[in-house]
Amino acid sequence: MNSSSFIDGDYRIGRMGSPRHSRRPSITGRFTAEELALAARNRGMPLEALRHDVTPPGLHYLLVHFDIPEADESTWTLSVGGLVSKPRSLSLGELRALPERTLRVTMECAGNGRGQLSPRYPSVPWLEEGVSTADWTGVPLRELLDLRADATEVVFHGADRGIDAGVEHHFARSLSAAQALESEVLVAYAMNGAPLPPQHGAPLRLIVPRWYGMASVKWLRAIEARDQPFDGVQQARSYHFRRVPGEKGEPCTLMRVNSLMAPPGIPDFYTRRRFVDAGPVEIVGRAWSGAAPVERVEFGRDGEWHRAAVAPERHAHGWTLWRFAWQAAPGEHVLACRATDAAGNMQPLEPPWDLSGFGNNGVQRIQVTVRA
Amino acid sequence: MNSSSFIDGDYRIGRMGSPRHSRRPSITGRFTAEELALAARNRGMPLEALRHDVTPPGLHYLLVHFDIPEADESTWTLSVGGLVSKPRSLSLGELRALPERTLRVTMECAGNGRGQLSPRYPSVPWLEEGVSTADWTGVPLRELLDLRADATEVVFHGADRGIDAGVEHHFARSLSAAQALESEVLVAYAMNGAPLPPQHGAPLRLIVPRWYGMASVKWLRAIEARDQPFDGVQQARSYHFRRVPGEKGEPCTLMRVNSLMAPPGIPDFYTRRRFVDAGPVEIVGRAWSGAAPVERVEFGRDGEWHRAAVAPERHAHGWTLWRFAWQAAPGEHVLACRATDAAGNMQPLEPPWDLSGFGNNGVQRIQVTVRA
Repeated sequence: MNSSSFIDGDYRIGRMGSPRHSRRPSITGRFTAEELALAARNRGMPLEALRHDVTPPGLHYLLVHFDIPEADESTWTLSVGGLVSKPRSLSLGELRALPERTLRVTMECAGNGRGQLSPRYPSVPWLEEGVSTADWTGVPLRELLDLRADATEVVFHGADRGIDAGVEHHFARSLSAAQALESEVLVAYAMNGAPLPPQHGAPLRLIVPRWYGMASVKWLRAIEARDQPFDGVQQARSYHFRRVPGEKGEPCTLMRVNSLMAPPGIPDFYTRRRFVDAGPVEIVGRAWSGAAPVERVEFGRDGEWHRAAVAPERHAHGWTLWRFAWQAAPGEHVLACRATDAAGNMQPLEPPWDLSGFGNNGVQRIQVTVRA
Repeated sequence: MNSSSFIDGDYRIGRMGSPRHSRRPSITGRFTAEELALAARNRGMPLEALRHDVTPPGLHYLLVHFDIPEADESTWTLSVGGLVSKPRSLSLGELRALPERTLRVTMECAGNGRGQLSPRYPSVPWLEEGVSTADWTGVPLRELLDLRADATEVVFHGADRGIDAGVEHHFARSLSAAQALESEVLVAYAMNGAPLPPQHGAPLRLIVPRWYGMASVKWLRAIEARDQPFDGVQQARSYHFRRVPGEKGEPCTLMRVNSLMAPPGIPDFYTRRRFVDAGPVEIVGRAWSGAAPVERVEFGRDGEWHRAAVAPERHAHGWTLWRFAWQAAPGEHVLACRATDAAGNMQPLEPPWDLSGFGNNGVQRIQVTVRA
């Protein structure tokens, strides 16, 4: 694939750019058919899977903006072009022959928790399940990048194409040159020791640890170094924190400190309400932060906070296991958890407001009926 | 595990049986938070995955009634008890040493399409994506069953426990003795050549080809032969076709004839509306029926039906590939598909009414904008 021809003409704004496609009024009350269809396609991780250090195959959360593209691994190439010393194109075989690295990475969708807000931005209405952990294997990005001195930004182009915010485009995101050269960024071809499955970017994807998931471009087919900020829809327009419409906003980058517990006891099928027998109950959960290691986790019961036991951190980019021995007394209870990272960031008690529902790290609350 | 002690005391009706838990008023209009939470947990198959003969790992649809149970494969046993000549308990190793069989099976949730109905039964609001195909490997059930002459019914008990319709229970379903002895029913320990993943029943599940998915009990831990009809919630109460409340109804059994196409072109992210460039477009889809082989598939364009090319059937219990060469002319179009099986069953043009949203095999319709 020729990098420059790929990049030329990638954006198509025209009839697709009509207001019919670009304006989505925000939503209050129950969920729309469009939200439901997105929830059915874009799977969350059932929270009982928090018991696994690495999310089992098929349970990792999934956000596919457009369709999962067809990919022929035997002919797939990754072009590296723009402001690099030697533009080139690499086959899968060539990439696999380079030094590899495996990283355990917790990934969360920037829109996780959007469905808890009101009014809601019309998009995937995650409640809290848009987070998972996997072992990713690939080539450190900096092994592939011989940036010219004038390169300031690196754009990652995926093969997935569709219309968003009225603009037809292939999904693409950028990192600054400095971010791209960090040792942790991978061009990954394997997940949990197996080739990437189609829905997670087969045959190649970017992995940007500690960032929200949108940075980890799937179905990666071109890397382009440039000396100008990238103005693609998913970079310059989507994935910004905004309080009001029209605001320029701040880009979503590192994952905010967050935590979840596996709901204890057994559920009611429809309401998902939890029922627990009185007595000792081991609460198990995970906590993570893109900014700094997790320092403290508190378990909340009916508004009282108790220090949870936090396991030693063994993977710099993976979530942290925590436990709490709860003595469940009969009655109705509200359980919660709250993490604090080493940079002093603590989860807020209520979802922070964001116009598009990004970065909701408000504490999880679970209503539990304890039976005598 | 002792089969009789497992079966005794399995049902608990008491405070859980209060009207608060057992009554769910039907729903009109937009989707409730409970429906949304079920859609986020219970993943559908994105329809572009219809291009795969076997649904790739992680894309198979999933319905987990309660929580995914923790399972220790090294200590897991399957008890076979009740009206059998020799009650016994088998380890995973003992099961794997028995003659194995692999079957390609298309499975569909009985509630697939529920979300299209109004009013809706409060449950997983599948739109149309609750269907997939996998290769399952295991021991033919009849190899394990030495039924006594008085056995008329065989019950399959899963390890997943929760509350549904106001009754606390482990998920369990039954087959008649004759159905259980059919050669195709498997006790499966592998899916697509790998051990079952947790969410698909690890380490053991039943596979009942041609039936809706509820028959293929996951996390199988006990098989119980009896001489009385099984009156468990998921057998005697759920999974019945009913037109009005209170009706006894007919049990859901074999999958009704059905078909889907992969939506052509590219989507708008939020509306999932499709955009296609004018010219030849190859439409690809699948059709299936539990009652008989697929005999005919028609492709519909704006209400006109055209015969699609149907691939020869190679797997008796797997879906059938069909294709249609569509000449896409600029403008707005509605595409549809409709299958007929060899028993003469044809999909209805509109969703058939069912109180609980079971068995909706109404034809799929896709709105497409063709661009000049």
